[in-house]
Amino acid sequence: MAKKAKIFPIYVLNGPNLNLLGEREPEIYGRTTLADIGRMAAACAEDHGLNVEFRQSNHEGALVDWLQEARSGACGVVLNAGALTHTSVALYDACKALTVPLIEVHLSNPHAREPFRHHSFISPAAKGVICGLGVQGYLLAIDALAALLKESTK
Amino acid sequence: MAKKAKIFPIYVLNGPNLNLLGEREPEIYGRTTLADIGRMAAACAEDHGLNVEFRQSNHEGALVDWLQEARSGACGVVLNAGALTHTSVALYDACKALTVPLIEVHLSNPHAREPFRHHSFISPAAKGVICGLGVQGYLLAIDALAALLKESTK
Amino acid sequence: MAKKAKIFPIYVLNGPNLNLLGEREPEIYGRTTLADIGRMAAACAEDHGLNVEFRQSNHEGALVDWLQEARSGACGVVLNAGALTHTSVALYDACKALTVPLIEVHLSNPHAREPFRHHSFISPAAKGVICGLGVQGYLLAIDALAALLKESTK
Amino acid sequence: MAKKAKIFPIYVLNGPNLNLLGEREPEIYGRTTLADIGRMAAACAEDHGLNVEFRQSNHEGALVDWLQEARSGACGVVLNAGALTHTSVALYDACKALTVPLIEVHLSNPHAREPFRHHSFISPAAKGVICGLGVQGYLLAIDALAALLKESTK
Amino acid sequence: MAKKAKIFPIYVLNGPNLNLLGEREPEIYGRTTLADIGRMAAACAEDHGLNVEFRQSNHEGALVDWLQEARSGACGVVLNAGALTHTSVALYDACKALTVPLIEVHLSNPHAREPFRHHSFISPAAKGVICGLGVQGYLLAIDALAALLKESTK
Amino acid sequence: MAKKAKIFPIYVLNGPNLNLLGEREPEIYGRTTLADIGRMAAACAEDHGLNVEFRQSNHEGALVDWLQEARSGACGVVLNAGALTHTSVALYDACKALTVPLIEVHLSNPHAREPFRHHSFISPAAKGVICGLGVQGYLLAIDALAALLKESTK
Amino acid sequence: MAKKAKIFPIYVLNGPNLNLLGEREPEIYGRTTLADIGRMAAACAEDHGLNVEFRQSNHEGALVDWLQEARSGACGVVLNAGALTHTSVALYDACKALTVPLIEVHLSNPHAREPFRHHSFISPAAKGVICGLGVQGYLLAIDALAALLKESTK
Amino acid sequence: MAKKAKIFPIYVLNGPNLNLLGEREPEIYGRTTLADIGRMAAACAEDHGLNVEFRQSNHEGALVDWLQEARSGACGVVLNAGALTHTSVALYDACKALTVPLIEVHLSNPHAREPFRHHSFISPAAKGVICGLGVQGYLLAIDALAALLKESTK
Amino acid sequence: MAKKAKIFPIYVLNGPNLNLLGEREPEIYGRTTLADIGRMAAACAEDHGLNVEFRQSNHEGALVDWLQEARSGACGVVLNAGALTHTSVALYDACKALTVPLIEVHLSNPHAREPFRHHSFISPAAKGVICGLGVQGYLLAIDALAALLKESTK
Amino acid sequence: MAKKAKIFPIYVLNGPNLNLLGEREPEIYGRTTLADIGRMAAACAEDHGLNVEFRQSNHEGALVDWLQEARSGACGVVLNAGALTHTSVALYDACKALTVPLIEVHLSNPHAREPFRHHSFISPAAKGVICGLGVQGYLLAIDALAALLKESTK
Amino acid sequence: MAKKAKIFPIYVLNGPNLNLLGEREPEIYGRTTLADIGRMAAACAEDHGLNVEFRQSNHEGALVDWLQEARSGACGVVLNAGALTHTSVALYDACKALTVPLIEVHLSNPHAREPFRHHSFISPAAKGVICGLGVQGYLLAIDALAALLKESTK
Amino acid sequence: MAKKAKIFPIYVLNGPNLNLLGEREPEIYGRTTLADIGRMAAACAEDHGLNVEFRQSNHEGALVDWLQEARSGACGVVLNAGALTHTSVALYDACKALTVPLIEVHLSNPHAREPFRHHSFISPAAKGVICGLGVQGYLLAIDALAALLKESTK
Repeated sequence: MAKKAKIFPIYVLNGPNLNLLGEREPEIYGRTTLADIGRMAAACAEDHGLNVEFRQSNHEGALVDWLQEARSGACGVVLNAGALTHTSVALYDACKALTVPLIEVHLSNPHAREPFRHHSFISPAAKGVICGLGVQGYLLAIDALAALLKESTK
Repeated sequence: MAKKAKIFPIYVLNGPNLNLLGEREPEIYGRTTLADIGRMAAACAEDHGLNVEFRQSNHEGALVDWLQEARSGACGVVLNAGALTHTSVALYDACKALTVPLIEVHLSNPHAREPFRHHSFISPAAKGVICGLGVQGYLLAIDALAALLKESTK
Repeated sequence: MAKKAKIFPIYVLNGPNLNLLGEREPEIYGRTTLADIGRMAAACAEDHGLNVEFRQSNHEGALVDWLQEARSGACGVVLNAGALTHTSVALYDACKALTVPLIEVHLSNPHAREPFRHHSFISPAAKGVICGLGVQGYLLAIDALAALLKESTK
Repeated sequence: MAKKAKIFPIYVLNGPNLNLLGEREPEIYGRTTLADIGRMAAACAEDHGLNVEFRQSNHEGALVDWLQEARSGACGVVLNAGALTHTSVALYDACKALTVPLIEVHLSNPHAREPFRHHSFISPAAKGVICGLGVQGYLLAIDALAALLKESTK
Repeated sequence: MAKKAKIFPIYVLNGPNLNLLGEREPEIYGRTTLADIGRMAAACAEDHGLNVEFRQSNHEGALVDWLQEARSGACGVVLNAGALTHTSVALYDACKALTVPLIEVHLSNPHAREPFRHHSFISPAAKGVICGLGVQGYLLAIDALAALLKESTK
Repeated sequence: MAKKAKIFPIYVLNGPNLNLLGEREPEIYGRTTLADIGRMAAACAEDHGLNVEFRQSNHEGALVDWLQEARSGACGVVLNAGALTHTSVALYDACKALTVPLIEVHLSNPHAREPFRHHSFISPAAKGVICGLGVQGYLLAIDALAALLKESTK
Repeated sequence: MAKKAKIFPIYVLNGPNLNLLGEREPEIYGRTTLADIGRMAAACAEDHGLNVEFRQSNHEGALVDWLQEARSGACGVVLNAGALTHTSVALYDACKALTVPLIEVHLSNPHAREPFRHHSFISPAAKGVICGLGVQGYLLAIDALAALLKESTK
Repeated sequence: MAKKAKIFPIYVLNGPNLNLLGEREPEIYGRTTLADIGRMAAACAEDHGLNVEFRQSNHEGALVDWLQEARSGACGVVLNAGALTHTSVALYDACKALTVPLIEVHLSNPHAREPFRHHSFISPAAKGVICGLGVQGYLLAIDALAALLKESTK
Repeated sequence: MAKKAKIFPIYVLNGPNLNLLGEREPEIYGRTTLADIGRMAAACAEDHGLNVEFRQSNHEGALVDWLQEARSGACGVVLNAGALTHTSVALYDACKALTVPLIEVHLSNPHAREPFRHHSFISPAAKGVICGLGVQGYLLAIDALAALLKESTK
Repeated sequence: MAKKAKIFPIYVLNGPNLNLLGEREPEIYGRTTLADIGRMAAACAEDHGLNVEFRQSNHEGALVDWLQEARSGACGVVLNAGALTHTSVALYDACKALTVPLIEVHLSNPHAREPFRHHSFISPAAKGVICGLGVQGYLLAIDALAALLKESTK
Repeated sequence: MAKKAKIFPIYVLNGPNLNLLGEREPEIYGRTTLADIGRMAAACAEDHGLNVEFRQSNHEGALVDWLQEARSGACGVVLNAGALTHTSVALYDACKALTVPLIEVHLSNPHAREPFRHHSFISPAAKGVICGLGVQGYLLAIDALAALLKESTK
Repeated sequence: MAKKAKIFPIYVLNGPNLNLLGEREPEIYGRTTLADIGRMAAACAEDHGLNVEFRQSNHEGALVDWLQEARSGACGVVLNAGALTHTSVALYDACKALTVPLIEVHLSNPHAREPFRHHSFISPAAKGVICGLGVQGYLLAIDALAALLKESTK
C-alpha cells in the first residue's frame, strides 16, 4: 500500500461541453453529472490500486497542455475529447507524443450520429477505443488500463 | 421599467479577429470598430427594452464557455463566430445545447468568398442566419430576437 | 410625399411552391398565406416610404423575366427562389445582372435541411442573405434595403 | 356507377420530350405514341372504375402547377418527369406537398443509362417507383394506385 | 392446360433477412410473412397460367447458384436481393448471364432510406425495377413477366 | 433561287439572359445587341443561300419546344443555351432527338470562368462547339453548318 | 442459481479469418487461439452468472443466420465480424433486427490500419464498440453486456 | 519422381460465375469450359513436375476456407476471384495470411471494363497479377509459380 | 503585297499522334493526312493575306519550345495539342505566356468521348475553342484569327 | 528458318528511369541491369523463332514515336512505360493506334505501392497485363505474344 | 547601432507541441530544444542587426493574439503553427491581416507525411514557405526576412 | 583550395518556361533573367567553396536525364521543375533515386495560385522545400545544401 503513492495517476481528460452533462435535459440524458463520473472513475481506479486525475476543459490548448503533462505524470490516459475528437490535429500530435497507453472514450456512439462525427483524430493514436456504453465506458477504460499496466510490469 | 432589470440580456458574441474591425484598412472597411458595433447593438436592444452583453475572443474555448453561460443568463444569442464558423464542432455542440434562440451573423457574405467559408457549423444549430449586411446585420438580428421573445411570451 | 410616386418599388419575388403557403398543413405551418406576407411586406415598405411589387411563379423563366424587369423598374429586390435556389444558374446570371441591391430570403433554415439545400446559386450574387426567420425575414430584408437606399442617396 | 363521377381522376403527368414518343425513330422505339399511352391508361383506369387526366409539358413550371392542382383534384398521381427527374428540386417539393399517393414511372431503365440518370429527385418523394417496363409501367402504376385507394377506403 | 406443365416456373428469389418478414415488429410492418408472399405470388402466377419457384437465402453464393439454375430452368426471375442489392458484383454478373427476363423488386423504397441503399448492382442488369409498393410489388412483377412472355411468344 | 424557298432555315436559338446583350454595361460589353447578332447571322446565312430563324427565351421549356420544332422545320441548329447549358438534361435530350446537325456556341469562353460553367450538357449532343469568339462565333457556326449541308447533299 | 439455466446465453460471433488466430505468426501475434478466447469468454460470463455461445464462420450468410437465431435465443451479442465489418450491409440489417443489445469488438484498432477499415457497417447498429484492446476487448464487452442486462432487469 | 508426391499441389481457385464458362454464349466466348481449363492447368503443372488442385465456388466463404487450407496444403495459389475481386476484404485478409506465393489471374482485362472492376482487393496481396490473356493467363501463372518455387529452393 | 512579307505567320501546332491522321483506318477516318490539312490551312491563310507555319511533334517539350518561339515570331496560334490537352500544365503556362491570340482546335468533340478528355488545360488560356468540326475547324480558326488581327490593326 | 528474317520483331519498350535498373541499390534490387533483361528477352524470343527490338527512353515523345513505328515494323509490343503509365494520355492514344497486340509489363506490383500508381492509362489499351513478377514478367509477355501470333496465323 | 533599438523585432511564433522538441525521443529527434532554437534564431537575427521575439503556445487563440500584436509591434513574422497549420482558418485570417511579411516554417516536410498534413491554411497567406530543413529552416527564414526588409527600405 | 576541384557541383535544374524569366512582362516580373539567377547562384555557391551546374529544359525527359546524371556527378540538387512539379511521376521517381540531397524551389508561392498547383510530386521526394521567396529562394537552397554537406562530412 505504501508503494501505491508512488504510482502515477490515470489522467481522465474531458473536452468541450462535457461539463454540461447531467444539467442538460436531465429527463432525457439522466442526472449523472461529470462530477459523478469523476467519483465513479476514482472508485473504479481504487479497486485496481490506482488514482485518477479527472479534468475537463472547453479549450483545446488546455487539453494539449494536460496530455503533455501526462507524459511524465501519468500511468495512462482516458480521453473523451468531445467535439475536438473530429477536428483537432493538435490533440492527435499530443496523443502520439504520449509514452503511456491512451484509451479513447465516448459516451454515445459517434457512428450512429452525424457524418462529421464518424472520423476521429484520436483513434489512430490510441491503444484502444470504447464508445456507446455511457458512463460504463469510462470504467471499462480504467479496467483496460489497469490490465495493460499489470501486464507491462510483469 | 422596473421589470426590465429582471430580463436576461442578449449575448452578442464575436469570434477571432473581429477585434481588428475598424483598425484594419479603414479606407476600405470603414472606421466602425467593434466597440462602435457594441454601442449600436446596445442602443438597438434598448429600443426593444432589452440589454446586451457584448464580448469578443480569439479563443474557441472562451466562446464555448460564454455560450454555456448564456444557457442560464441570456434571453437570446447573436453569434458571429468569425473563422471558427467553418471549423468548430465544439461551437456547434455548444449552440445545440442552448435553450434560448440563436441568430448567426456575418458582416460579409461568406458565399461570395473562398470555398472553405461556404460551410458553417453554426447554421444548422441556429434559428436564423443573417449575412452580408454589415453592421446592420447585428441590429436586424436583435430586432428578430426581440420579435421572437415577444411572440414566445404571448 | 409627391416625390414618393417617383420611387421605383421593391420587387419581392417568390419561386416554386411558395404559393402553397398557409394551405398546406396549416396546423403545422400556420395559416399565414403568401398573400398575407404580401400585405405585411407592403405595410413594412410603406413605413419606409416605399412600395412593393409582390409576385410568385413556379416557372424559372418568369423569375428571370421579372429580375430583368427589375433592372429598370425596381429600387431593390427581395428574392425567395424556393427550390430553384439550389439549381438555377439562369437565376444566378439574372441576379448578377441586377443594378439594384438584392437580398435573398428563406422562410426556413436550409442549412438544417437536406444536403442539396445547403448550396445556393443566389447567395454569391446577393448583397445579403436572411434565412430561418419565417415571415419576419421578408420584413427585415425590406428594412435592410430601405437602409441601403437611404445610405446610397446620402 | 353514379358514384364514379365523384371520384377524382388519376393525374398521369409527363415531362419534357415525352411528346416525341412514337415519332422518333419508330423502327427502333416502336410506333406507340404518347396519345396511345393515354388511351391505354384510360382503359386500364376504367377497369378499376377510375378516370385519368393525361397531360404532357416541356415546362418544369407547368408540371409544378399540375402537381399542385392534383392536391385537391386527383385521387393519385403517376409521374414520368423525363429529364427533369434528375435535376428538379422544384418537382421534389411539389411531390412532397402532395396529399395523394404518387408513383414514379420511367419507360426505360435509367440505371442502365448515363450516370447522371441514376439519381432521381422524384423517388424519395414517391410511394413507389416502376421503371424499365415500357408502356406497361404506366398500367402497373395505375393498378398499384387502384389497389392503394381500395385499401385506404376499407 | 396440358402444355402448362412444360412451361418453366418463374423464380422468385429473396436475399438476406427477408425471412424475418412478419416476425419483426408486426405492429409496424404487419403480419404478412415471406411464406404469405410466396402463396400470393403462386396465386398470381396461376392466374397467368404460370408456376412459381419461391426461395430465400442469407447466402450470396446460394443466390448466385439459383440465378445460374434459372438460366435453364425458369421462364423469368423476380429478385429481391435485400442488402446484397447494394454490394454484390457477383449477383450483378449472375443477373447479366441470365437468358430470361429479370425484374428487381423491393418492398420499401430504397431511395427514401440511407444513402448506401441508393445504388443497386441489380438494376443495370434488370429488365425492370419495381420498388416501394410492398407485397404488391411482387405481384406486379409477375404480371409484368407474364406480359413479357406473352409478347415474346407471339 | 426558286429552290431556296424550299430549304428549311437554320434555327439560331438563344437561352436565358442573352436578351440583355448590349444593354448591360455597354461601355464594357459593347453596344452589339442580340437583334444586331440576328441581323449579322441572317446576312451570313444569306451568303450561303440560307435563311435564319432567330429566337430567344428565358424559359427552358420554350427552348425544348423549339428544338423539337426544328426536327421537321430546320436544316441545322445553332444553340447558345446560356446558363441552361450547365444544368439542363431536358435540353440534352431534345438535342439528342434532333435529326439535323447542331452547333453549340458561346460568346465568352466558359472554361475561363467559374467551375460550374466548365461542364456542358449540350456539348456531348452537338456536332461541334465554338466558344470565346464573341459574335463571330455565331457566323463561324453558320459557315460550318453551310459546309456540312453542302457536303451531305453531294 | 436454478434460474440461471433459464437465462439465454450471450452469442459471441466471429467472422472470416478469425479462426487463424494463434496459428499465424505466433511469434508476433502471440499463441492465443480463438479457442482460448472462447474459454476466457466463458469464464468471464460465468463470473456474471451467464453462458456463452461461441462461434466462428468465414461465411457472411452463416453470420446472418446466427444473428437471426440470436433474436430469440440470446440475451446479448458480441460481434467481431472481421473483414465483413467493412463491406456487409446484410450484417448491418441483421444487427438492426436484433432485439437484444449488441457490442462490436475488434482485436486491433481499425482506425490505425488501411483506410478501407475505417468504416464499419456494424457500428451504427451497435449499442457500443470496443476496439484495439486485444482479447480483453471480448471480456470488457461481456462485462458491459452483463451490466446492461442487470440494469434492464431492475 | 518419388519425391514429387511429397510436393504440395498448386491451388487454382475460381470464384463466382466462372463455372458458366463455355456454356454462356459459346459463339462469342468460345467453347472452352472451366473443366477444360482445369485439364490444361494440370498438364501445364505436370510439365513442371507439379500437381494442381482445381476448384470453383460461388461462395466467398468457401474461397476463404480454401485459401486457409492452402496455408498448409499448397505450394502456391492461382486465384481468379471473379466478381469478389472487387468487393471482398475477407479474401484480401485470407490472401495476406498465405505463406505461399499467390498469383491473381483474370481471363479478360478488367481495366477495359466497367469502372467498378478497376479496383482489386486481391492485387495488393498478390505476388503478381496476370490479366487479359484468357486461358493462357492460368498457364503463365503456373509457369511463374514454378519458377518462383525453383528459385526459392535453390 | 510587299508588306505581306513583314507579317508574321500563323503558327499551326499539332501534338502527339496527329501525324497518324489519314494513315490510320482510312476507311473510317478518311484519307486526309496532316500534310493535307497543312496545305488547306496554307490556302485558307493565303485568302486572308497570311502565311502559315505548320508543325507537329509527339514531344511536349517541342510544343513548349514552339509556343515560346511564337511569342516573337507569330501573329497568332492555332493549337491542337492532342492528348497533351488533358494533362500538360507546361503547355498551359506556355499558352498563358503568349502575347498573340491563341485558338484551340480539336478534330473530334472531346465532350462526346472518354471522361478524361472533358478537361482541357489549353481552354482557359485560349481566346477561343473550336471542336468537333474536323478539318474545317482549322480553317474556321484561321478565319477567326484573321478577323481578330484585322480588328486589332484598325 | 529463312522465313524468320521476314518476321517483324517484338518491340520491347521501356520508359523513364528503367535504365537505372541494377545500378540503384544493387544489394536490394539485385544486379540485373536493363541490358541483362534485353539479353534474356532476346533469348526467350529466339526460342519462339522471334527477334526483339529492345529500347529505353526517359522521353514520352520518344516512346510515342516508337509505338507509331511499331505499327508497321513490329509483330507485337511489350511496354513497361514506367512512371508514364500513370499520367500519359499520349501513350494511351499511341497504344490504341497499334495494329499489333500489346502486353503491359511492370517489374513490381503497382497495386501494392502508392495510390497514384493504381491507375494505368496503358491497361485499357492493352491485350494483357502482367505485373509483380520481376524480369520473368517480360519473358511471360513474350511467351504470350508468341502464342497469340501462332494462333492468329493458324 | 542607436537606431537598432527602434527597429521592431521579428516575431518567431510556434504552435502546439513544439515545446516538446528535444525532450521527445532525443536519440531520434536530437537534443535540440525549442529554447536552443530560440537562441540560434536570436543569434542569426543579431547578425542582421535585428532582434527576435520568440514564443510558443498550445492555444490557437494565443497565436491569433500574437499575430495581431505583430501588426504594430513586429518587422516580420516567422510562423511554425504546428498542427494548427492544417486546420485553423482563424490563423489564416490573422495572417492575412498582417501588414508585415510572414514566412511559414516547418521542421519536417509535411508533404512526406500523412495526407491531412499536405494542406496548409498558412501557406496562401504567407510571403514564403520553408520546410523540411530542420532548425536551419528558422535561420533561413530570418535571412529571408532580413533581405526583404533591406529591400523595402531601399 | 586544391581539393575544391574534386568536389562535385550542385546541380541547379529548371523546368519548362523558366527560360522566359525576365523577358516576359519585365515591368511586372522584373528584369532578372534565368541567366542572372545562374550567376547569382554561382556566386553564392562559391561563397561556400562550391560550384554550380545550372541548366534549363522544356523537356521532362531531359530533366530526368540530368537528375540521373546527378546521381554520380553532383553533391546536391536544387530543382525548380516548373509546371512539371504538378504532373510528373517520372520526375518523382528520378528524385527518389537520387543519392544526394534535393531541395525543391519555386519563385512564387504555388499555394496562393490555381488549385492544380497545390500538389507537388517533387515535395515528398525532397529533403526540403522553399517557395515564394523569388530569386533568393535559390540562394537559400544553396545555403541549406552547403550546411547539409558540411554536417554530413563532419
